[in-house]
Amino acid sequence: MNWSTRNLKVNWHPYTQMKDCENDPPVVLEKAVGLKLIDENQHYYYDTVSSWWCNILGHSHPKITEAIHRQLKDFGHVMFGGFTHKPAITLSEKLVEITPSNCERIFYSDNGSTAIEVALKMSIQYWQHKGKENKNKFISFDGAYHGDTIGAMSVSGTDLFHSTFHAVCFENFKTPTVSITDPNYDQNEAKAIAAFKTLLKTHHHEIAGFVFEPLVMGAGGMIHTKPSFLKQLAALCKEYNIHTIADEIATGFGRTGTLFACEQASINPDFLCLSKALTNGTLPLAVTCTSSEIYNAFYADYNEHKTFYHGHTFTANALGCAIANETLSILETENLVQNSRHIESYLRESTDSLRSLSCISNLRFKGSTLAFELKNPVTNKAFTSEKRIGYQLFKIGKKHHVILRPLGNTGYLYLPIVCSKEEVQQIVSHTYESLVELEHELKNR
Amino acid sequence: MNWSTRNLKVNWHPYTQMKDCENDPPVVLEKAVGLKLIDENQHYYYDTVSSWWCNILGHSHPKITEAIHRQLKDFGHVMFGGFTHKPAITLSEKLVEITPSNCERIFYSDNGSTAIEVALKMSIQYWQHKGKENKNKFISFDGAYHGDTIGAMSVSGTDLFHSTFHAVCFENFKTPTVSITDPNYDQNEAKAIAAFKTLLKTHHHEIAGFVFEPLVMGAGGMIHTKPSFLKQLAALCKEYNIHTIADEIATGFGRTGTLFACEQASINPDFLCLSKALTNGTLPLAVTCTSSEIYNAFYADYNEHKTFYHGHTFTANALGCAIANETLSILETENLVQNSRHIESYLRESTDSLRSLSCISNLRFKGSTLAFELKNPVTNKAFTSEKRIGYQLFKIGKKHHVILRPLGNTGYLYLPIVCSKEEVQQIVSHTYESLVELEHELKNR
Repeated sequence: MNWSTRNLKVNWHPYTQMKDCENDPPVVLEKAVGLKLIDENQHYYYDTVSSWWCNILGHSHPKITEAIHRQLKDFGHVMFGGFTHKPAITLSEKLVEITPSNCERIFYSDNGSTAIEVALKMSIQYWQHKGKENKNKFISFDGAYHGDTIGAMSVSGTDLFHSTFHAVCFENFKTPTVSITDPNYDQNEAKAIAAFKTLLKTHHHEIAGFVFEPLVMGAGGMIHTKPSFLKQLAALCKEYNIHTIADEIATGFGRTGTLFACEQASINPDFLCLSKALTNGTLPLAVTCTSSEIYNAFYADYNEHKTFYHGHTFTANALGCAIANETLSILETENLVQNSRHIESYLRESTDSLRSLSCISNLRFKGSTLAFELKNPVTNKAFTSEKRIGYQLFKIGKKHHVILRPLGNTGYLYLPIVCSKEEVQQIVSHTYESLVELEHELKNR
Repeated sequence: MNWSTRNLKVNWHPYTQMKDCENDPPVVLEKAVGLKLIDENQHYYYDTVSSWWCNILGHSHPKITEAIHRQLKDFGHVMFGGFTHKPAITLSEKLVEITPSNCERIFYSDNGSTAIEVALKMSIQYWQHKGKENKNKFISFDGAYHGDTIGAMSVSGTDLFHSTFHAVCFENFKTPTVSITDPNYDQNEAKAIAAFKTLLKTHHHEIAGFVFEPLVMGAGGMIHTKPSFLKQLAALCKEYNIHTIADEIATGFGRTGTLFACEQASINPDFLCLSKALTNGTLPLAVTCTSSEIYNAFYADYNEHKTFYHGHTFTANALGCAIANETLSILETENLVQNSRHIESYLRESTDSLRSLSCISNLRFKGSTLAFELKNPVTNKAFTSEKRIGYQLFKIGKKHHVILRPLGNTGYLYLPIVCSKEEVQQIVSHTYESLVELEHELKNR
């Protein structure tokens, strides 16, 4: 039996209707080097989605491999309750140094969802310690995505992912966002800010925090938001005594052209959640960074019952920390955040071809990412989700060496920030070929 | 500044009142080899809690290190949506082979909490697909612990950990458990079964599943339960059409003397959640194993909207899978599950000394684990939690080369299943010395 058949007999893939695999089975990968994934037939794919937005330095980076070997000489993992180790100390110090000034304390967990859950729980417990037990609800953007555990789902607004689990999710406030591609931007931004203000005015006594993905709302449809908009919302949070919880799980570590997206909006969040690129996407590790103000509210004699009872077996996994230390060192010494801004220029320069297509619209750029909406080239209208145009593009893209894995009708590139100009041009060219093929199919249906 | 001071400036440790660290800072570990953790002053500690119950083969196992090096020649991680790889295929096949016969399908995630969340969500969605939308509640044992994310907390009953977050947890049914040390065992088992039956009779139409840790309820206080008791509860679940969700995150992989604890109770669960020892505690990886019956209820044409929308960036992390494959191979070839049973014999044989102490009671054994209750040697009564006797024992234990990290008043050993007879004797001897010192302190207060 070949590997693909064996895979389909035992594995259940994430976010996947497994019946689709009858005609389009998951590709069996054998190698991953630099920007390329290579399958068992030696066909290659540019990892144009950074393996779910986590790989920033390319695959099998020799320095990362070396860092793993080095750490393994000491140990892979030891418990972080009652014990600590140098990789975690070094990493936390570095994170405190490079994150916004509020972030002075590091709490480790394993993935984006748990980083969010930690922030939500810390926020709730903080308000309890301040005698404000009613502050236990959160605000998030319409269409936001913050993870798939039940707490993270509760503050998300992506119906496709989460409506099934409504009964077990806790109540949450939603607030409108505004995409930079909105033709009525100014009007809708004013409306969104007014709505947010009204929500805070009416409900601030029961709201613990506001959770948001700054600048790029990923799984919600690669919605790009303006720094000035977010800055105003954050200021309102401050005014009404509501925590800001910045979800930079996807946007962190240079992705948007600055080390953290918050910087562009001059936001100094009460909580900053990071994962994905923290280990260059090598293995699961996440952190929730928070302020001394929050930390100090938990710091008390034991019998005051202010301990934060949260943890995971692999908290501050030493291998993960060692890899993260190496990742941050490479980021810095190779000046890669700057390269992310260069990638945005390369993308802007090389996408004239894409603009000539009639199956896409709303092309937008941010750092090493690009996004667009797929549309009917004949009617110019959006496709209904049943048509699965995005999925069709994914299948076409694989033939052309690119991973185009649209979110519904939203296509995107999410490139490792090490890409050179030539690589960006090559990838855009393959993307163009794929879209041309899609457009041809759509016109000849 | 020394490492310990630096640690306290930036890190927030799990389950830790950080103020305690002023007098008792986390130990800075430098090496971990075999059963021993070694700190920066070259003091060693037997890892008698298996680094939070996850390490079964000892630290820095050369074959695990080799497996990591081997995998790194191909890649560390690639996305598991639309792609797959041999380490995950091999691991899933092996898991299907060695787990109870119901477990035919493997869904990956990162840690114990997420493995539970996946099971809860699959169970709820399964019942929706069967037209039973009201079945969205769960039952768990009084005092159960299934993790710290909000979904996992909702099905837990450990007040110390979770009462703060009541407002965001969903409603859950609790059912009594019976400890094998209960002096009125028979009577209380009958009561517990009757209560469970009544609960199912009355509420089965709104209950999706029953979540339980078979044989050893870990964080809830190392409560040992009888296989026959669990077997009866599982049979009632079957009768009333309720999923059994076995949380073997801690008990899996030989810990209780069989490969899985379910085997001893002849339970064939609808969901089996595994993590911790799956990678020999090297890095975060978890699986939720389920039946074809469950899987098939999601297998449909895309537009029927039956897809399971759950995933994590690092789903089926290839490094983790490669390590897990090696771990399972070592388990098998070195016959370590049998050794876990031997460890139980060694523990039983060498603990006469412990029985002579008047500060402990309710000594109990299961595979490579042992547990007891701390009590006042003068009054013979339990201590109130404010006295923090467990924490006192932890501090004493460290001086005697053992990690005794009681859960409240419950002391325990949770040994790697590779321990030899001599090592068990050595560890019990150190434990005895620590308890003698504690008893002395308690008597002379």
